[in-house]
Amino acid sequence: MCYSLDEDLRVMQVAIDEAKRSMSEGGIPIGAALVRDGVIIAKGHNRRVQDNDPLMHAEIDCIRNGGRIGRYGDTVLYSTLMPCYLCAGAVVQFGIPKVVVGESVNFAGAEAFLREKGIAVVNLCLDELIQMMTEYITAHPDIWNEDIGTL
Amino acid sequence: MCYSLDEDLRVMQVAIDEAKRSMSEGGIPIGAALVRDGVIIAKGHNRRVQDNDPLMHAEIDCIRNGGRIGRYGDTVLYSTLMPCYLCAGAVVQFGIPKVVVGESVNFAGAEAFLREKGIAVVNLCLDELIQMMTEYITAHPDIWNEDIGTL
Repeated sequence: MCYSLDEDLRVMQVAIDEAKRSMSEGGIPIGAALVRDGVIIAKGHNRRVQDNDPLMHAEIDCIRNGGRIGRYGDTVLYSTLMPCYLCAGAVVQFGIPKVVVGESVNFAGAEAFLREKGIAVVNLCLDELIQMMTEYITAHPDIWNEDIGTL
Repeated sequence: MCYSLDEDLRVMQVAIDEAKRSMSEGGIPIGAALVRDGVIIAKGHNRRVQDNDPLMHAEIDCIRNGGRIGRYGDTVLYSTLMPCYLCAGAVVQFGIPKVVVGESVNFAGAEAFLREKGIAVVNLCLDELIQMMTEYITAHPDIWNEDIGTL
């Protein structure tokens, strides 16, 4: 299948909706979606605040929601924000070959690590997401720093 | 506090008990414990089979069970097996400075990545654990390969 920006934006919108759902629940606005063969098989969002769960980053919640699919070689993970080492580690360990992210202005994450491991990284650099995350971090610096382990 | 092998073996026994509990539940026998200031604040075990959860590695379950403790700079993570990239990613992201493992014969894991990131890695090389994991992998190769993403 040729690369399709329209397709990436369509799936990213699902991740964005997850991020907004998290914010409406009082949580950190980061969302994710997992795609296999063009079909969205799972979605999720950060649940640190909602579940008091320090490891429930959006990408982790999403991959969990996908269940035990066994092989990830034909999947693509979408996230509204560049993955951190935890989530990048999941990508590398389970062999997800490609990650599409909404932005990395607010968090550089583990992009270099992903690329070193041969993972394709596409950054959509979406102004809407840069603004949403900047506003959240400015309003909730403690929760944000807790989420990325820099308290 | 000076380094104490007795202390490491005492805590590792808690992780071993978790691994055995997992096996008694029909799951993968990997256990973990999290220590802060000499006190075990959390323990956990692999729950892939029990919960049908692809991301619930022992170390992830353990750190989750510790709750939102905020800072990890004074913690040590114990695991019966060398952590994979997912679990090593959690260690790196949250700044856990030291990992004590029971063995790495059955799984080399992400030891090099941990060391590159400045994490101290102590390997107790316990025959009991090498044997337990070898027997499990021999008896359940599909579940094991699923757990490390090599199906």
